[in-house]
Amino acid sequence: MITQAPRGTYDLYGEQVRKWQSIEKTIARLMEDFHYGEIRTPIFEHTELFQRGVGDTTDIVQKEMYTFLDKGNRSITLKPEGTAGAARAFLEHKMFADPQPTKLYYITPCFRYEKPQAGRDRQFSQFGVELYGSAEAAADAEVISVAYELLKRLGIHNVTLHINSLGCRECRAKYNQELRDYFERYKDSLCETCKERLERNPLRILDCKNPQCREIVEGAPSVLDALDQDCREHFEKVQAYLSGMGIPFVVDPGIVRGLDYYTRTVFEFVCDEIGAQGTVCAGGRYDHLIEELGGSSVPAVGFAAGIGRMILAMEAANGTMQTETPLDLYVGSMGEKASIEALSLVYRLRALHVSAESDLLGRSVKAQMKYANKRGARYTMILGETELETGKASLKNMESGESETVDFRNIQEWRNQLS
Amino acid sequence: MITQAPRGTYDLYGEQVRKWQSIEKTIARLMEDFHYGEIRTPIFEHTELFQRGVGDTTDIVQKEMYTFLDKGNRSITLKPEGTAGAARAFLEHKMFADPQPTKLYYITPCFRYEKPQAGRDRQFSQFGVELYGSAEAAADAEVISVAYELLKRLGIHNVTLHINSLGCRECRAKYNQELRDYFERYKDSLCETCKERLERNPLRILDCKNPQCREIVEGAPSVLDALDQDCREHFEKVQAYLSGMGIPFVVDPGIVRGLDYYTRTVFEFVCDEIGAQGTVCAGGRYDHLIEELGGSSVPAVGFAAGIGRMILAMEAANGTMQTETPLDLYVGSMGEKASIEALSLVYRLRALHVSAESDLLGRSVKAQMKYANKRGARYTMILGETELETGKASLKNMESGESETVDFRNIQEWRNQLS
Repeated sequence: MITQAPRGTYDLYGEQVRKWQSIEKTIARLMEDFHYGEIRTPIFEHTELFQRGVGDTTDIVQKEMYTFLDKGNRSITLKPEGTAGAARAFLEHKMFADPQPTKLYYITPCFRYEKPQAGRDRQFSQFGVELYGSAEAAADAEVISVAYELLKRLGIHNVTLHINSLGCRECRAKYNQELRDYFERYKDSLCETCKERLERNPLRILDCKNPQCREIVEGAPSVLDALDQDCREHFEKVQAYLSGMGIPFVVDPGIVRGLDYYTRTVFEFVCDEIGAQGTVCAGGRYDHLIEELGGSSVPAVGFAAGIGRMILAMEAANGTMQTETPLDLYVGSMGEKASIEALSLVYRLRALHVSAESDLLGRSVKAQMKYANKRGARYTMILGETELETGKASLKNMESGESETVDFRNIQEWRNQLS
Repeated sequence: MITQAPRGTYDLYGEQVRKWQSIEKTIARLMEDFHYGEIRTPIFEHTELFQRGVGDTTDIVQKEMYTFLDKGNRSITLKPEGTAGAARAFLEHKMFADPQPTKLYYITPCFRYEKPQAGRDRQFSQFGVELYGSAEAAADAEVISVAYELLKRLGIHNVTLHINSLGCRECRAKYNQELRDYFERYKDSLCETCKERLERNPLRILDCKNPQCREIVEGAPSVLDALDQDCREHFEKVQAYLSGMGIPFVVDPGIVRGLDYYTRTVFEFVCDEIGAQGTVCAGGRYDHLIEELGGSSVPAVGFAAGIGRMILAMEAANGTMQTETPLDLYVGSMGEKASIEALSLVYRLRALHVSAESDLLGRSVKAQMKYANKRGARYTMILGETELETGKASLKNMESGESETVDFRNIQEWRNQLS
């Protein structure tokens, strides 16, 4: 047990971590171009934040949180998602007093105690974007364009953007009643979970994967018919902005999202090639969240995307990602003096951004060269007594097999050959 | 309470997070040059890992860990440091079977329940390097050169490298007895903490900040006199390698480090300008850690550095770091059609890595320009009915005040002016 990562968690290293690094670099550049600033909030928060910010009735809060008492007897919880912490920070640091909108992004580990299965880990990593302070359709469209551009840059072209509107609080309440009335008629045919949902949150029935429920759902009233004039206009504008940017989408009244806090626009980017958990990225508008946390009314829109799932989608689209860690030069050595000279040479090269290595194990020259080969060194050089005396060494190109004698201490003379 | 980060934790955003990003970029490049691969281990581990890997008798394990039961009733702990997780992963993934040495690095949040004070947060971030599989002095020296080069690249030139050797297990045991004998004579004058240390770990008395203890410490035997032949030779070689690389150091028998697992080389980079907590980076050799975790005997050497403390040291050395987030262009608009065109234009520019913004709040043109000014936009452009009809708009350089009419939809024609 001591030599295993906890169940549902994993280590990233080698090839795999280089894929993550590559996605994170793409995100950092994207966020510069779109002018969003990074925010990093603590790994844990006061438990109440998630009860209020994610919602008491959600599966996340009811069943899946890592909640515990700290040594000061305060209830704290490892963050199950990224939005609540960012919203708390927005309030705590009075960012609403800055020129609006406030445009933030985060990349953070999140924690949910779920039954571990493919695509569902207990610790996973999310990239998210939050735009505070604008109720305009332009803001919804900009946030969607961030996600669209990211997927484009990652080469994830096998996705479809689904958008929907859940309306404002009033529309949602009215539609919930319509759904309740409708599903009440089929109550006996619904699955057990949906029977519960009927009281608590009938919207979630639309999300059920049970075949019998799905059949009943087909005849259910559409949320789009329940929207009032303002909400309808807002949704139409979002579509106009998206079309203006040339971003293709389908209107899909089946998109409801699991969290209670969404209002008006909701959206998902769906990839059919990564199994049942096909949503690569999802978000929407949540105009009452900041109020819910005790602030004044500040509209907000955002999305989140799992980094792990994006990698699956990338590989489904492009085949396996290739990442490289080139080793430019291996400097072998014979004897202690030469070993000191080799590490010194390697150190000076590294300071010039040349990736170089020398022996750290006191191995024979033969074993050193075997290691250099395994590591894929592009060039090698061996230092021994003669080389130290004459200051000359042979620089060997491992691909062509050609060698050249260089004044090895005068790095400037030959380092350009390495790149 | 709901609108505050938990005590001893903090949010990073704006100027501050850009400093962190800049350090992380430097580290990523450094690690490529030195050919270390990143490893990311889970935020929490089985508690037993830290009891074994950090040491049962340490303050960290006894008093400071965030330990709790998960929903499956397993004791898990938020990582208080980075080495134990990396060592666990090294074993779990049988990295010892790869060509050695294994060279890893991590940047990770760590958690310790301490009394919050300047430079001591309950969540803090560490950069660390681990080199497994070599017992040679060259490995110690390479690891130290990583830290030295990092501080150099960050412009932290106001530090001194202190090195020491604690010897192997046998030397340590012998020296501990010498210390016990020595301090026993002054037992009544030692502080209460040191009286305890006398039994458990007399080495730690050398670290005490109490003035009276410090006075007694001055006459204590030096660990360097207790080293056997092999340990002495190893330490001399480390110094030869460092000198070969031109890395200045002082031999300081007062360096003992808080953790039990060190053997032979220990080192610290100390900065006098950042207060009592002057250690920017510290590490050493720990040849028995992997064995302690249930593996076979694998020598190891590494270090860790707090990111927050590195920023303090950087600013002490260089003055406040300046980070910028340039906004190349602000595209204002009048009316809904122009707003759609503006967001579309901005979207196309962003895809070309031009940092651009448009109005997301339905503000007046005057208010939009005020916002553009606050954000420090380098260029502005305003789209209205005329511009949409003619396809021509005025591109204004905000610094010079000069304007030029451009065919605004033909981005290729004028985008080069922005960079």
